[in-house]
Parts: sequence; structure tokens; C-alpha cells
Amino acid sequence: MGFEGLNGLSWIAGRQGVARGKGFRGVDPATGDELEPEFFAATKEELEAAAKGAEEAAAVMARMSGKERGALLRAIAEELTAVGEALVERAHRETGLPLPRLQGELGRTTGQLKLFAEVVEEGSWVDARIDEAMPERKPLPRADIRSMLRPLGPVAVFGASNFPLAFSVAGGDTASALAAGCPVIVKAHPAHPGTSEIVGRAIAAAVEKQRLPGGLFSLLFDPGIEVGEALVQHPAVKAVGFTGSAAGGQALMRLCGARPEPISCFAEMGSTNPLFILPGALKERAATLAQGLQGSFTLGAGQFCTKPGLVFVPAESGEFVGALADGVKAMGQVMLTPGIAKRYASGVEERVKEGGAKVVARAAGDGGKGACGDAAVFGLGLEEFLAEPKMEEEIFGPTTLLIHYGKTGDLVEAAKRLHGHLTATLHGTPEDLRGAGELIAVLERKVGRILVNGYPTGVEVCHAMVHGGPFPATSDSRTTSVGTRAMLRFARPVCYQDLPDEALPVELRRGNPAGVLRMVNGVVGRA
Amino acid sequence: MGFEGLNGLSWIAGRQGVARGKGFRGVDPATGDELEPEFFAATKEELEAAAKGAEEAAAVMARMSGKERGALLRAIAEELTAVGEALVERAHRETGLPLPRLQGELGRTTGQLKLFAEVVEEGSWVDARIDEAMPERKPLPRADIRSMLRPLGPVAVFGASNFPLAFSVAGGDTASALAAGCPVIVKAHPAHPGTSEIVGRAIAAAVEKQRLPGGLFSLLFDPGIEVGEALVQHPAVKAVGFTGSAAGGQALMRLCGARPEPISCFAEMGSTNPLFILPGALKERAATLAQGLQGSFTLGAGQFCTKPGLVFVPAESGEFVGALADGVKAMGQVMLTPGIAKRYASGVEERVKEGGAKVVARAAGDGGKGACGDAAVFGLGLEEFLAEPKMEEEIFGPTTLLIHYGKTGDLVEAAKRLHGHLTATLHGTPEDLRGAGELIAVLERKVGRILVNGYPTGVEVCHAMVHGGPFPATSDSRTTSVGTRAMLRFARPVCYQDLPDEALPVELRRGNPAGVLRMVNGVVGRA
Repeated sequence: MGFEGLNGLSWIAGRQGVARGKGFRGVDPATGDELEPEFFAATKEELEAAAKGAEEAAAVMARMSGKERGALLRAIAEELTAVGEALVERAHRETGLPLPRLQGELGRTTGQLKLFAEVVEEGSWVDARIDEAMPERKPLPRADIRSMLRPLGPVAVFGASNFPLAFSVAGGDTASALAAGCPVIVKAHPAHPGTSEIVGRAIAAAVEKQRLPGGLFSLLFDPGIEVGEALVQHPAVKAVGFTGSAAGGQALMRLCGARPEPISCFAEMGSTNPLFILPGALKERAATLAQGLQGSFTLGAGQFCTKPGLVFVPAESGEFVGALADGVKAMGQVMLTPGIAKRYASGVEERVKEGGAKVVARAAGDGGKGACGDAAVFGLGLEEFLAEPKMEEEIFGPTTLLIHYGKTGDLVEAAKRLHGHLTATLHGTPEDLRGAGELIAVLERKVGRILVNGYPTGVEVCHAMVHGGPFPATSDSRTTSVGTRAMLRFARPVCYQDLPDEALPVELRRGNPAGVLRMVNGVVGRA
Repeated sequence: MGFEGLNGLSWIAGRQGVARGKGFRGVDPATGDELEPEFFAATKEELEAAAKGAEEAAAVMARMSGKERGALLRAIAEELTAVGEALVERAHRETGLPLPRLQGELGRTTGQLKLFAEVVEEGSWVDARIDEAMPERKPLPRADIRSMLRPLGPVAVFGASNFPLAFSVAGGDTASALAAGCPVIVKAHPAHPGTSEIVGRAIAAAVEKQRLPGGLFSLLFDPGIEVGEALVQHPAVKAVGFTGSAAGGQALMRLCGARPEPISCFAEMGSTNPLFILPGALKERAATLAQGLQGSFTLGAGQFCTKPGLVFVPAESGEFVGALADGVKAMGQVMLTPGIAKRYASGVEERVKEGGAKVVARAAGDGGKGACGDAAVFGLGLEEFLAEPKMEEEIFGPTTLLIHYGKTGDLVEAAKRLHGHLTATLHGTPEDLRGAGELIAVLERKVGRILVNGYPTGVEVCHAMVHGGPFPATSDSRTTSVGTRAMLRFARPVCYQDLPDEALPVELRRGNPAGVLRMVNGVVGRA
């Protein structure tokens, strides 16, 4: 299996940590059992050493070629594959996520490392631009001006609880930061410390095999928030990548903005992902829609950032509602942690008590000691929904809210009053969709991704993906955390005026030795 | 001359404002005389109307083609040219800047509008990406996924005092926001209200002639900060463009971050632009360097964001220092406003009194009542410079600080301790530069633009320019406020999954009817 056992210690710039700060353990959410071994919080000194190492590695990474960065990303994917069995097994115990899901997630994780490798090996992502000198121009000559994207510097990454592989230690933020040429310091999510250690050591092994500076990667443990807070405030850190709760993300945004040198905080904080079922579609395929929606909002026990948690459906929708209610009534699933299960249960309970929405269907609890989340569907009218802003907030877990509307014309006004979300989905017949132009135009200003006749869960990792959206879904709607555009978060343009060729990055040299696409005097090509 | 006289009122979403809030006047800095007519602050109701108009116009602009946006930008350039004579004359009276400079600045302003027009007419800037559906893929099919940059929404622009044309009402921020498809609300700089009104009415005329919604552009007057503060806090506003002081920019950053919906604040706050004279260059051309530096740091009375205000020069530099001192001793220039002249004089006086640096040369004041700025050169040793962080701060006006170093090896450590700046410049012989690799590598992490054997003042408007840099030079080192990359600040990627062709923006439709460069399944082309 290639993995020799856990030691519970942070990984600091090429070396195993030694400090034994505050101890904590992973928990099996299916049983509530604490898992071996004990893990220990990193100390201030370890954080300092990680930051210093990252700063030194930043200078080395800035000089690495795209091919060298690609080799590193591929090496990490290989190391992860080598420890795959142990990794998936541990992740299963720590998160309660089913083994096939975790095997798929491992594939997604190594796949996205390789996709970023392809992009940096090809090299054109740097947006190289050249405006050639015009020494004879009147009234003033033009200098030789060249620019391209360069790495920002060390990035702090916070692992997410709901994607222990694809959005954690070697997940999308780490992959995109490394691809952009930035060293990474990961704050491990305390809900899956063993998974984090296995992945962290795989990355460390790849760094060592590629003979790169150890400071390129560090992994810090902490059951609480102190290490993370200190990390984002460290002067060496130049950007933050985070996936998690609104409260956590917004706290990081404030810390990043209040630093003596404010830095960018790229926080993906989830959303409720409105889904609109248009009348023609409902008439045509009510049962299929109920089944599809059920599959999507309960996927991964509803613990997806893209879970459709607001479903606009015509008032006359008895068949759809009935089928949905039938489908969910027996759906109890293990959730990621006892804490998440508890917050989910109290969120649902609160919604029941508040009484603004009525219970459409609710699975019966199993009463076991594990972290079980029972599916719940609520319903209310469009007017009531619009009158209660709280209804738009995310309840993390397998629940959704049906919002019954009278006429489709009301949907445009309703959409205008939504805040930012990651996705919006429309289900409609071709005729429905022909009439939905204005709705789509409004939704485009509210979300990062619009889908037709599909479900927002299951985010494809590709070049065109946007996993982002206006606040409060993310901290910066101008970015995505999934897909190859995610790299752009961790780079900035640098301009070189009249530099001799040998002082330029290879992508900007005369004759285009790197062979990348460049904009030369406004025209894009490889010349 | 094509311009019919000033009325002193704001321009609100296609109509002349009527409210007469707090009154103020432009001042001729050469004489101290107040100018006709009186101008009036916009009221809350006017701001509200401007915001509402911008919000409505945003929906229309989002549907405009690149060609239509290009036509608008070209129409604005035409209107500006038509009122050019009156405009330059008024700007001259309000700013004290020489007529030839202002004529050149008008050319730059219309030129950059036309450059942005070219970019949007061509259309490839939207970074269109398509990952085609793979219905047969195992284990899961892939959907059809397309994405491109779309406008952010209404942008608040703050006019700069030092570029009354090129970085004010129709300046780089406005041009790039309109190009990206965003309505603009400008808060006019109170130091050149007449100039602002002329330009504002030229833009309004272009909007009207293009039969576009009036809400696409508003211009708000205010002698103080109330209107600007309310503007950046308005829910309709989705981003801010600002060029000005560190205090002003940082205040806007805080306001933008503290909104219920935080928004991006793109503030360019100036810098001190370190310039390094390497020993070979000094030996070869001391007098030429003195002359070049003098021209650069006193250009526009030293009121450039890119003024070289920190000059690292070998300790043995008698000829250079002598030539520089001779050159500046008679240089008194009219500054932009009496307030700026006063702050400049007290900044210089403070530096004299503090005594950390000694006076190398100082022009004699003319004692007139105008806003005169007398050139001043200070000098000190590298150690003393590093011991006093205040020496790195900008004094806005015609002054620079010589920092005498012993060996070039010390420059790397000194550069590491600099904070962020817009530019860094090296003067060196080919041999000097071959030895400066590490210095260049350090400077690349500190600035947005590196120059060799030139001067940072005179920023070329082109595709490759970067006028940006790490904090405190700007609020976001990932952006530029000059050059066509500036558009990217006001756009965000939006993704469309499985949408029918007719619901897609034209740039993403099957068959590429817009003929733009697109990345299809990872390969860039026009297919």
C-alpha cells in the first residue's frame, strides 16, 4: 500500500514537525469512535519556519519553467496514486463518505493535477504580451514593452471538510497555486487529519524527488483557528485559498483586509443554488424531475457547495411533490462529522419551528450514535419566500426548499432579489426556454454558472468551468476555484520595459523560444 | 469650439442635475483666483437616480455587442476632439499644467478610448472557453460547458487630480469599464470641475447619439467626500476605480470591504519608484543620467504616480550629484492646486527638519501667490535609508532622494526590504546588467513594471503595459489601471452548461459567429 503509518505531526518546509501542541483526533462519523493516532497542533515556531521556507522557495519557483512545474504536479499525482488504497480507506473512516465516491474523488484529484500540468507545460496561460519598440515614432518613441503573468508568492490554503481529497491538501487550490508558481502552506482541516497527513507526505515525497526546495510545501495541523489566523496574517503569505462556511470565509476576508499589507482572499463559501422548474418541463416529466432533484440535493448527504437548496416550481405540482416526498422519506445518510450533523439537525429543526415553510417530507432518524443526516424537504409560496431573507440561506446537508410560484413572469422579479450564488439551473422545454431570456439575463448577474436541464452538483474540472459567483457565494466573483482558470487567482502581470533578452522570462524573449501564444502588437499568435 | 458654457451641475443618468448642494469653484493655481462658474454638490436623490439608472443600463450593456461598445467609445473620442480647444483651455486654467502637455494628454485620452474600441470590436479579450459535451464518457458523461468574461455591473470611478483628462472623467478607468460593458458613475475631482463638466457632457452626447440608455453614465460633483463615500457604499455599485493618494485609496478599500456585499476596489495610490544607477553606467554617463533623472522627477512638477523618488547611486558620484544640483536650482513650477503645493512644501520642510537626509539642492521659491513647487533633492547613505521607513514614502511633487550605496551587492538586500511600488528602474551597462540578475528577480516581486536605461514617467498606453504593483502602490497587484489589460478588472467569468445556442452570448455559440479566439477542448483557435 506504500504508506507506512501516521505520526500526527505537521510537515514543515521539507521536514517532519516535532512540536506537540494541542492534541486532537479524527473521528469516525459512522460510529462516533475516535481514531488513532493523536494529532498535534503546529507551534508558532513551526509556522514561522514554514513561512520562511515558503518565501525562499518562492524565489526558486519563480525561475522554474512550465515543464518543471508540470513535472512536479505529475509527480504529486503519482505519489497520490501510489498511496491510493490507504488514502481512500482513511478518508472513508474520517468522513463517512462511501468508498466509491472517494475513489472517484481521488481520480478527480490526480486528474486535476495532470490537467494543470498540461496547461503549464503548454505555457500560453501566462498571457504574454509584447508591444515592440517604435524608435522613430513622433512625437515620442515607444519603448519595447513586454508583460506576462508571474507568481504572487506563498499561498495559504485551507482544506475543506466536504472534499477531503479534491478540495483539501492536494486539492484544487493547492494544484492551481503550485501550477501558478506559488509555494503552498496548507492548514489541514481537523475533520480529516489522517487523510491530510497521507496526502501531505505524498506531496513532500514528490517535492523531494524533483529535488525542489522543501519550503515549497508545508502542512500545519491545528484543531482550532489559531494557526490559521496566524498563517493568513504572516507577511510572507501573499494570498489565501479557502473553501468552507460563510462565517469562516468572511472571518478570513476580514483578516486579509486588515493586514498592514492587505492580500487577496479567495473564499468559496457555498450557496443555495436556485433551480427553476418551468411549467412545460413539469408537465412533461414531473417524476423524472423529482428523481433528479432528489439525487442532486442528497448527493454526498447534501454536503456540496452546489447543492440545489432553492427549487422554484409551479404551484400546481402535486405529482412532482408527491414523487419527491416518496423518494426522500427513507434517506438517512452519514454526514462528515458529528458537528456538521448536529448543525444540520438544528438547522432543520429551526426551519420546522419557525413555521415559515411547511414540511413536505422528512426522513425518520435512525437514532444511532453516528452522525446521521435525515433528508428533509420544505415548501412555501413565492411571496412568503421573498418576505423572509433567511429562507435564502444555506442549510448544509440533505435538505431543499420548494418555492411555489404562480406565473413564470414572477420569476424574473424573484431572481432580481436573490443574492449571489454559485449556480442557477433551469429545467424547461425548448418553448419554456425561449420565453426565459430575461430570467437567464438576470441570473447571469447573480451566479457563476447557469445550467439548463441538468443538476449543479458534480462540478466538471475543465478549462471552461466557473465555480464562483457574487458574494456571499465567494469573496471575489472575478475568480473560480475549479477549472484551469483557477490558476489566474495566484498570478499577477509584470511588465518589462527595454530589458535585454537574457534578463527576460523565457516566454517573453525574442524569437519566442518557449513557443507560447503571445499578443504581439495586438495580434495573437506563436510567431 | 463646440462647447456652450458651463452650468456647474451634475449629470444624472441622461439628464442635467438640478440640485444645488454645497457650492465650490475651481481655482487657477497659477494665480490663486477662483474661477467661474460655481459648482454644486450632488444630492442623495441625485446619487440614487444615478445608481438606479446605472443598474438599468447594466442590463442593456450586457447585451451590447463588442462592435456596439466600440462605437460608443469611438463616439466619446469624437465628442472630446470636437470640444478639444475649450477643454484644454479650461484644464490649463484649473490645473496649471502647460497647454502642450494637456494637448498631448487629450490625444492620449482619445487614443486610449480608440484602443479599447479596437479590443472590444475584435472581441477575443473575453477569454471564451468551450469544453464540448462527451455524452459517451465513462463513468459519467460530460456536459457542454462554455464560459467567458461578462461585465461586473456599475462601476464608480474617481477622477485623479494629476491627469485631468487621461485619468479623470473619460480616462482609463472609465474607458476600461465601458469597454468591459459596465455603466460608469464618475465622482469628479473637485480640483478641475469645469474640465470634468466639459468631458462629462461630451460622454453624455455620445451616449445620446448612440441611442443608449442615459444611465450608462453619470457625473457627480462634490467638494468633499460625502458623495464619494455614499457612492461606493451603494448596493448598485459593483466595483471602484480610483487613482489618488494612499489615504484616499485606503479609505475606499475599507469602505468597499465593509459593505454588506463587499466589492472590488481598484485603487492606484502612487509610489516612490526606486531607480538604481549601477556603477558602470555612472562612470560612463553621469551628466546624461543627471539630466535624464532631472527631467523625469520634475516632469509635470513631479506630480506623477511613477516619479522616481528613490535613486540608489554609488557613493562616489560627485559629477552626477553636481550636475543634478545645478540643473534643479532654478526649477519652480506651478502645481495642480494650492493645497497640493502646500502639502508638498510642508513635506519638503519636514524632510529638511528631520535631518535624516541632507539637502543636495533646492530651488529658490518665487514668493508669488500661486501654487509654486520648488524642486528639491535630498541625499543620505544606504544604512540611514534602511533605518528610517519614512524615507520610502511618497512626497507628491518635484523632489527625489539620492541613496548612496557602497557595493552593488548591498542593493539586493535593500531591494528585499522595499515595500510595493509601481515601477523599478535600472541604469546599467551590459556588464552591470549581467551582474544584476538577482536584483531584477527581487524587484520583480516588488513592482508592476521594471525598466532598463529609461525613466518610469510617461506610461505607454498599450496591450503590454502594467501600471500596478503590490500594496501600498495599489490595492490589488493582480491588476493594471493603464493598458488594455485594465478591462479585466471589470469583468468576471460566467459559465453556461448545456444552454441552447440562442440563449448563449454570441461569442460562445456553435460555429463561432463572432469569429473570436476561443479555447476549445484546451486548444486556442478561431475554429
